[in-house]
Amino acid sequence: MSRDIRISHVRITPVAFRDGPLLNAAGIHEPWALRAILEVETSDGRIGLAETYGDAPMLAVLEQARPHVVGLSPFALNLMEERLKAAIRPVPGAVEYTLAPGSHAAKNAAKAISAFEVAMLDLQGQAVGAPVVDLLGGAVRSEVAYSAYLFFKYAEHHGRPYEPDAWGEGISPQQVVAQARRMIALYGFQSIKLKGGVFEPRHEIACIRALSEAFRGMPLRLDPNANWSVATSKRAAEELDDLLEYYEDPCPGLDGMAELARHTRLPLATNMVVTTMEEFRRNVEKKAVKVILSDHHYWGGLRATRQLARMCALWELGMSMHSNSHLGISLVAMTHVAAAIPNLSYACDTHYPWQDEDIVRGGRIAFKDGAVAVPTRPGLGVELDRQALAKLHDQYLACGIRNRDDRRQMQKYDPSFTGATPRY
Amino acid sequence: MSRDIRISHVRITPVAFRDGPLLNAAGIHEPWALRAILEVETSDGRIGLAETYGDAPMLAVLEQARPHVVGLSPFALNLMEERLKAAIRPVPGAVEYTLAPGSHAAKNAAKAISAFEVAMLDLQGQAVGAPVVDLLGGAVRSEVAYSAYLFFKYAEHHGRPYEPDAWGEGISPQQVVAQARRMIALYGFQSIKLKGGVFEPRHEIACIRALSEAFRGMPLRLDPNANWSVATSKRAAEELDDLLEYYEDPCPGLDGMAELARHTRLPLATNMVVTTMEEFRRNVEKKAVKVILSDHHYWGGLRATRQLARMCALWELGMSMHSNSHLGISLVAMTHVAAAIPNLSYACDTHYPWQDEDIVRGGRIAFKDGAVAVPTRPGLGVELDRQALAKLHDQYLACGIRNRDDRRQMQKYDPSFTGATPRY
Repeated sequence: MSRDIRISHVRITPVAFRDGPLLNAAGIHEPWALRAILEVETSDGRIGLAETYGDAPMLAVLEQARPHVVGLSPFALNLMEERLKAAIRPVPGAVEYTLAPGSHAAKNAAKAISAFEVAMLDLQGQAVGAPVVDLLGGAVRSEVAYSAYLFFKYAEHHGRPYEPDAWGEGISPQQVVAQARRMIALYGFQSIKLKGGVFEPRHEIACIRALSEAFRGMPLRLDPNANWSVATSKRAAEELDDLLEYYEDPCPGLDGMAELARHTRLPLATNMVVTTMEEFRRNVEKKAVKVILSDHHYWGGLRATRQLARMCALWELGMSMHSNSHLGISLVAMTHVAAAIPNLSYACDTHYPWQDEDIVRGGRIAFKDGAVAVPTRPGLGVELDRQALAKLHDQYLACGIRNRDDRRQMQKYDPSFTGATPRY
Repeated sequence: MSRDIRISHVRITPVAFRDGPLLNAAGIHEPWALRAILEVETSDGRIGLAETYGDAPMLAVLEQARPHVVGLSPFALNLMEERLKAAIRPVPGAVEYTLAPGSHAAKNAAKAISAFEVAMLDLQGQAVGAPVVDLLGGAVRSEVAYSAYLFFKYAEHHGRPYEPDAWGEGISPQQVVAQARRMIALYGFQSIKLKGGVFEPRHEIACIRALSEAFRGMPLRLDPNANWSVATSKRAAEELDDLLEYYEDPCPGLDGMAELARHTRLPLATNMVVTTMEEFRRNVEKKAVKVILSDHHYWGGLRATRQLARMCALWELGMSMHSNSHLGISLVAMTHVAAAIPNLSYACDTHYPWQDEDIVRGGRIAFKDGAVAVPTRPGLGVELDRQALAKLHDQYLACGIRNRDDRRQMQKYDPSFTGATPRY
């Protein structure tokens, strides 16, 4: 491998793919989810891939980053980080949701660093003939477990932009159990997460109870996305105590979670109040959250995720992974880094079962017994299906969505919906 | 590069090299310093190098580690770490000095992990054609600055085992200034550290004052190696306030340093009270030390050192590097990792000027303007001079020293010396 290889070109392709009418605290998923596909090309003709957020402000951030990355060696990760930390400026127009840390403009530099780091690691791996996990110290496991990520959902989108998905409505406990059965039959997952914060806590607890009865011994999680007050979260904790492996972001804010932590023996998990290294620092001072749900897309990359994992080990915190609607490149990147983390203590979240499209060659990534095999091919181990990429880019151009906005979408169903939290 | 490359053999060669009659809080350096040279061989005939402590208990630790490393891929750093953490058991016979964290048996696993990690990174770099720094995210600087590391010293060793060195006696302020002039003329250093904790604080402060007058504007440090009480350290701080860039380990223990921190505006530095990740955690809770002097040999390797650096950045601590008597392999390993750390805020310590032998091909590593150029050749960028290695191994066999023991050596000069601390 020549040390003279340089990044010569960066191609950013926004894509849109079908997404289910999935309910959450902020509203409901729009019919099209956005991502950006990064192609980082080198002077010797290799292409490194990454996948990140595809909203308009993020595309502008990636454009800001582009000139600072062109000309670098794919090995110059530290220099890339320093340059982007210095160069990335706020971009107007971001629609920020507390439940989606990837939407926060304050994380722009970390998000851009992550995207370019993944693509550069893909290039490094291709150049040296090693999978990305080897560049992170090597795999400590040969497969990475994911959980069945259940959502309350409607049977179809407002306005029926395309044929309804095969999952049907998911509102009653029976429907939620049926959703879990279907997802586990298809993917083999061995733990279950329910995205809550949508209906009355009483209803959501009943759904957890139904899941517990239907899937004896299966680890369960509930994520009300900070849509419950501290008082509601405390009351619910008494009922959830024996049912959950962890209790994810029931109430808002680090102080609220710290208060709740003093009143429950359930470990509290978060992807909302510990989303940066600085918040990690405050959390260990306040002793609030016990399980950190990492996400390389906004934590600053795969190396930052490994850094976070070592800090979790040091402060005796559990660790797993958060997800947003995503495609196969993100899934393999998550799998590489998860394989390099000895103290990954829970199955990772993924929205992947909710998508039925992809832009990787060979079609959608396979799961076996709820897990993804750690790729052993050089780099990330995936290539682009250019026809699929063109199709999803056309969908992006046609769909008209430029910022994810779950609240606005919910108002199509219910004009009185405000999205104000905590709702319960 | 084939993914099937495996570690086939580990060769451990203890060496001894001439070391000056350098005084410190524990006593005086013996005439021979010990190191172990690791050669980790792969099935395709490459040799990865590392250098670490060479005392008898450390050799036994490396022997314990050996069978857990043979058979691994050089990329399997995480697996190697997990295995050695589980496998390394206490080894009797360690002579532990608080001033030399590398002598602590509790650090056996971290020390072994570090040694094998450096050798495996050397192998990785050779295999992929990239310098080790590129495997740590790439260089953010092209050279690494070191400081002039001054010692109080006698003109010659007890019993005159070989011809005295060219440095002469270093006790009076004038002699210390002369030592600094000579070292700076030879190496070009642009900052100065004085190892203290030897004489009355009044004398050591006078030496710092003489250095300050002789080298106007040159950053100065004093390291009494915890040989001063908290009360003495407080009184001395008042005099040192305008003279030092940092005040290194004047008094013992994290609580002592925390107490001192509340009484001086000098940043406190340490390689004694923050020597593990767990101690880092306690230090940030106690807000004691402001500058961490890392040392990859006992912190668990180059990746752990980068981890530590990111934690220092997060908790707004300064960072530099500690050293022991060492040879060229350690110096280049320090240089690679230092080049990958953006927030390395001070010139690193090195004992290298006190040695006149080496086991690397081409002879001793060059300094320019007090800095070592970051190697750009694949791997660590150094090879063994097998003739020199054999000579230093013969010296090891002949010298009879198997555990560094500065106190016992001092008792040859002064039978009443107890080494009890804090002395002042």
